Amino acid sequence: MSAGLFVTFEGIEGVGKSTQLALARDYLVARGREVVATREPGGTPLAERIRELVLHEAAEPVPASAELLLMFAARAVHTENLIRPALARGAVVLCDRYTDATYAYQGGGRGVPDRDIAPLAALAQRGLEPRLTLLLDAPVATALARARARAGRTDRFEAEQEAFFERVRARYLALAAGAPGRIVTVDADRPAEVVAAEVRVALEAAAAGAR
Amino acid sequence: MSAGLFVTFEGIEGVGKSTQLALARDYLVARGREVVATREPGGTPLAERIRELVLHEAAEPVPASAELLLMFAARAVHTENLIRPALARGAVVLCDRYTDATYAYQGGGRGVPDRDIAPLAALAQRGLEPRLTLLLDAPVATALARARARAGRTDRFEAEQEAFFERVRARYLALAAGAPGRIVTVDADRPAEVVAAEVRVALEAAAAGAR
Repeated sequence: MSAGLFVTFEGIEGVGKSTQLALARDYLVARGREVVATREPGGTPLAERIRELVLHEAAEPVPASAELLLMFAARAVHTENLIRPALARGAVVLCDRYTDATYAYQGGGRGVPDRDIAPLAALAQRGLEPRLTLLLDAPVATALARARARAGRTDRFEAEQEAFFERVRARYLALAAGAPGRIVTVDADRPAEVVAAEVRVALEAAAAGAR
Repeated sequence: MSAGLFVTFEGIEGVGKSTQLALARDYLVARGREVVATREPGGTPLAERIRELVLHEAAEPVPASAELLLMFAARAVHTENLIRPALARGAVVLCDRYTDATYAYQGGGRGVPDRDIAPLAALAQRGLEPRLTLLLDAPVATALARARARAGRTDRFEAEQEAFFERVRARYLALAAGAPGRIVTVDADRPAEVVAAEVRVALEAAAAGAR
């Protein structure tokens, strides 16, 4: 593993993205890699401030168009100021959510047309794509029960109804079907160590492809 | 004048947009119109917070793509939460800068391609266009001397070099040449009252067309 490697973790709330990302980080660090673990929206101080505007603004409604533009503004900052420099150093970047999440949540979940999303993605990513995307998949009821059992505040997305997450999950699976070379779907309705073993196999395969 | 009327004021720093917008507001209010005077980027609490991120962020560089996305996020909020409701009530909306400013500053000034700007404009405006745009035009040296003589902090844009503003001015004039039915160019290198009289003529013509 010598070149930079951009890996994203996707899936609805409660499928174990944070847990799997942490396990993957530990595994790669133990093998001597520099790992940058980050998340979207956010990842830099400016991007985190934009994230706050998207997720927790309450003073006035956030129009769907503005939500989309803010998400991609945060993504552009994160991509240029953190992800690209890390990849240039040869690091592995493990990112909790990226553009697939926009197609799944804003597209599948809220009904924003793909034609509104695509030009923003092109602008924010300027050609950068994940080498590997791990889609952690589990039934919505199972995942939401886990998400709701966690401590912490409920943001606007987690307050959405189950039908919303069914649409998000369906879009994620459709994205995976359309990008079999990049997106690896992992059954996340199993013990974390079993899921982690499958994630490690996919990471090793992607790293071997990057050599 | 019974229908809502959306009027924008454009031009580089120091041409007198704020002064002319205030005089136009006073004129219309004296004639019994509801007038909403506003500005971009900004215009609502959320849009103002986005404006602060664009203009005064210093902790990390703001990539050009992120600047563009934040500008249009603020514009989407402003358009949906303030401009459209005001127009629906029948008000005259006088706005200090709108999308022409993006084509002039980010496009002409910074070299962002029009093809990056157009899809964002379509998303943020959802078909809304100003009925009238008043382009206040003056030589760059004259305008900048006035802008620099004003009290107050210098933002990132005002710190740009004169060559930048020459490109911005040239793009504004090209936009006016391409939209003669909407953009009225006013020679702003004259006393404010002379400029204001010409602005009033254009406002009356636009209001008559809106009846």
